[in-house]
Amino acid sequence: MKRNFFVPYTSRGLSNISPPPPWHYAGDFLVIDFWARPDAVAALLPSELQADVKAEGHAQGYFIDWQFTGEHDELLNPARYQYREFFILVDALFDGRPIAYCPYIFVDNDAALARGWAQGFPKRLGSVFQTRTFNTKGPAAVKLAPGSRFGASASTDGQRIAKGIVTLEKPVTDPAAMSSRPTVNMRHFPRLAAGQWERPAVHELVESVMDNFTVADAWMGKGELTLPECENEEISDLAPVRCGNGYRMGVSYSVTDLKTLADHSVK
Amino acid sequence: MKRNFFVPYTSRGLSNISPPPPWHYAGDFLVIDFWARPDAVAALLPSELQADVKAEGHAQGYFIDWQFTGEHDELLNPARYQYREFFILVDALFDGRPIAYCPYIFVDNDAALARGWAQGFPKRLGSVFQTRTFNTKGPAAVKLAPGSRFGASASTDGQRIAKGIVTLEKPVTDPAAMSSRPTVNMRHFPRLAAGQWERPAVHELVESVMDNFTVADAWMGKGELTLPECENEEISDLAPVRCGNGYRMGVSYSVTDLKTLADHSVK
Amino acid sequence: MKRNFFVPYTSRGLSNISPPPPWHYAGDFLVIDFWARPDAVAALLPSELQADVKAEGHAQGYFIDWQFTGEHDELLNPARYQYREFFILVDALFDGRPIAYCPYIFVDNDAALARGWAQGFPKRLGSVFQTRTFNTKGPAAVKLAPGSRFGASASTDGQRIAKGIVTLEKPVTDPAAMSSRPTVNMRHFPRLAAGQWERPAVHELVESVMDNFTVADAWMGKGELTLPECENEEISDLAPVRCGNGYRMGVSYSVTDLKTLADHSVK
Amino acid sequence: MKRNFFVPYTSRGLSNISPPPPWHYAGDFLVIDFWARPDAVAALLPSELQADVKAEGHAQGYFIDWQFTGEHDELLNPARYQYREFFILVDALFDGRPIAYCPYIFVDNDAALARGWAQGFPKRLGSVFQTRTFNTKGPAAVKLAPGSRFGASASTDGQRIAKGIVTLEKPVTDPAAMSSRPTVNMRHFPRLAAGQWERPAVHELVESVMDNFTVADAWMGKGELTLPECENEEISDLAPVRCGNGYRMGVSYSVTDLKTLADHSVK
Repeated sequence: MKRNFFVPYTSRGLSNISPPPPWHYAGDFLVIDFWARPDAVAALLPSELQADVKAEGHAQGYFIDWQFTGEHDELLNPARYQYREFFILVDALFDGRPIAYCPYIFVDNDAALARGWAQGFPKRLGSVFQTRTFNTKGPAAVKLAPGSRFGASASTDGQRIAKGIVTLEKPVTDPAAMSSRPTVNMRHFPRLAAGQWERPAVHELVESVMDNFTVADAWMGKGELTLPECENEEISDLAPVRCGNGYRMGVSYSVTDLKTLADHSVK
Repeated sequence: MKRNFFVPYTSRGLSNISPPPPWHYAGDFLVIDFWARPDAVAALLPSELQADVKAEGHAQGYFIDWQFTGEHDELLNPARYQYREFFILVDALFDGRPIAYCPYIFVDNDAALARGWAQGFPKRLGSVFQTRTFNTKGPAAVKLAPGSRFGASASTDGQRIAKGIVTLEKPVTDPAAMSSRPTVNMRHFPRLAAGQWERPAVHELVESVMDNFTVADAWMGKGELTLPECENEEISDLAPVRCGNGYRMGVSYSVTDLKTLADHSVK
Repeated sequence: MKRNFFVPYTSRGLSNISPPPPWHYAGDFLVIDFWARPDAVAALLPSELQADVKAEGHAQGYFIDWQFTGEHDELLNPARYQYREFFILVDALFDGRPIAYCPYIFVDNDAALARGWAQGFPKRLGSVFQTRTFNTKGPAAVKLAPGSRFGASASTDGQRIAKGIVTLEKPVTDPAAMSSRPTVNMRHFPRLAAGQWERPAVHELVESVMDNFTVADAWMGKGELTLPECENEEISDLAPVRCGNGYRMGVSYSVTDLKTLADHSVK
Repeated sequence: MKRNFFVPYTSRGLSNISPPPPWHYAGDFLVIDFWARPDAVAALLPSELQADVKAEGHAQGYFIDWQFTGEHDELLNPARYQYREFFILVDALFDGRPIAYCPYIFVDNDAALARGWAQGFPKRLGSVFQTRTFNTKGPAAVKLAPGSRFGASASTDGQRIAKGIVTLEKPVTDPAAMSSRPTVNMRHFPRLAAGQWERPAVHELVESVMDNFTVADAWMGKGELTLPECENEEISDLAPVRCGNGYRMGVSYSVTDLKTLADHSVK
């Protein structure tokens, strides 16, 4: 029997939108460094965060093919739990400390959306794809090798919001050199009662906690990212002024905790 | 500019997963009365609710084709805001008063999922379809007329969780006679911090408030509903012992409020 | 038992991708008159067709919410057979006779794709949406009335390929005045055998035959259509130079036949 | 510029539903040996094929995560060309020679559907998923190792049509020992003209030709497959009487040809 961590609440917890923590993840990452207009980055930051002036608008785009499992072999049910994700992290400061803040994130799975909301990731639905590696040979089997290219894209409601390409150059010899700022989110849940709309039930700045974070087969090279203008979407405000490195790596970690930095929930 | 009622928080509110209230809805409803095993109904009720013994397990299945709009012509953006929904309401009592509780609900749209969570509807994603009426003639254009049949189905993660048919007999002359218990939900948002998993940030019994509730072109007849057994899903625990009336009607209303009946949020 | 008209061939024909003809359709149409660059229209015409110089690039965009049925109550299975469609018709001449040719068409359903291929419609998959009417009142229930607006969009592979708005002005008093050129398609099926790639098994110019064509509740007004540029797509070559009338109407018809105008299949 | 091998026919061939051959594939395969009722297998065979009595109903279920590319870097556009597939092959004889015939196949991509039809694969749309391997460590990162389990499922129109699990035991030391019968399909395209419905334009028994067929990292173990009963679907007629080995392997090949065994197209 599973506990009911989310809704719906049921007798055996099977119908719950996602199993309770611990949550275990393994994924293929395409990551692209880019620089947005610093004022566009600053405009998205919660009031508790400060612009990181030295970062000059630095941000990263992530395309991820994820496999998720809880404690009941959820990875054997990929129709319900395997998913794809695209998100952006922007550099900022919290109390003078460098952090990365997530203003946009899109997934193709509702269990992932629910877990994301619990973590403060502002998830919406989208469709996300990336070129994969395969063990066999031939023109369709991309390898981790110099010159290999990986394409990726993300869309929401039928509009293309992001497109990326990473061209590999060499293995990452020092994974510690890759950007590793703590991820900070705004965890939020509204009140709907009349007169309470400006008094969210949950509104707290939180820092992600990732256990057993592991990187494998990390490669780096050239990154290219575009964030096309879309009707009734604002993500293109972060359109790259220039792009930098691209990375392709395997990542796994578990989630069992969350750290509150500032709680503005209205009691 | 739209306020940011949900996430993500952005400068103009366009990228927010759903616009803020007021929320306006218009829909085509297929509704099927059925009786589940009373113990299966009772097993799903929150502790604040009591089984409605006289109801003998009475419940209703709803398949709805929805059109949504906020205050910025969202109905002109159907790719983002038009959606379909399936849910079940079961009869219960709150402080001795007859109410209807929603244990399961599925939608095909993330804006609807977000609004649902704010209202306490335990929404997950699913695909939902129903036979439509059309103004023209011919074999494919179903009419509101005696003998007309409307089929409907709902699936989640590739499993068929519900299937219904309504066969029309006659117009509903007294819409007030249709079941009109207030809808009661468990509004819930978890805490992820270690040691806090059993202390939800939001856990309150709430009653839906619907403004300007309007019914049009209501017909009644025979209802048939099946809730097939599905792997890792519990909804079939409510499988009909017998079915009753079926209804097909147009409904519209607006949402600007929510009433808290009991607040068990852990501060 | 159903005949196997398409694949897969099975004992009872239930698993066939679509039932055999007769095919019956009822739908809500949003139609937008527009003028593309005449050379862009001409570039898409098969060699048997001639540019309609007097039409000056006239074309129409169609967004349709369809209900389909065969002879076995397929309309009660909307998850499999109800669908949405977007297509473009361009004016052209065949042997000096005005016709409309379909260069692009997108549907969200494989049964519709199969029937379309049999008719010569060059269907690909896409997601298509349009604003709907509802019988009830309220802000979300659009009516057939002067000033009402209907939005529509089409996307394929996550790229927005078309967006339209129709603003109603008045009922169409003379439906015969609406464009009613016969629809001409290129029915095509390739050969894959080495050396045969340029020798299609089926390549014939065909004219659609529609039985019992009925129009209901036709309104006209202002039409607006955009065909945004998309990567690796050519539909924006037809981007409107200007737009004209918009129409909103109900349409139904049946399909049991197809007329061959010119057969270039390689035997 | 790409040739127009399929529809739609356009100036640069970019909008064609799939690029022309050569077609290059790389994929992760989950394969499950099973035995269906021999009469159920025989009922699906075209008249040119004979039941393989010695096979006693032997068949195989395939779940595949595919990457496709043509000659223009289509693998960099995974939103359009990457896809997933489920199909069944049944043992049969052609002129006394052991072959494998494909009665059912489902894909989640229209370019794959089009190529499949050209090859004679009777493709319909479905959603297909399988557990993946990842290079990193941790509970969500399945490895090629004894005891590892891979789950898979396929659905169409919201009904679960297949579910499989493969539990690895050991590497395949002799890939040649795995079933390698030639794949035989019925390539078919109908005629819609009245009176011609029984006279298909294309109806030929064909044998797949696969160039540079490569297997990598093949493991074998225990296979489990279920084909649940679904409304208006016949695939469960092949429900396993018993299951046998399961395989997990990488496969790549190219397609540039097709061999006709018997042509019953009606000229």
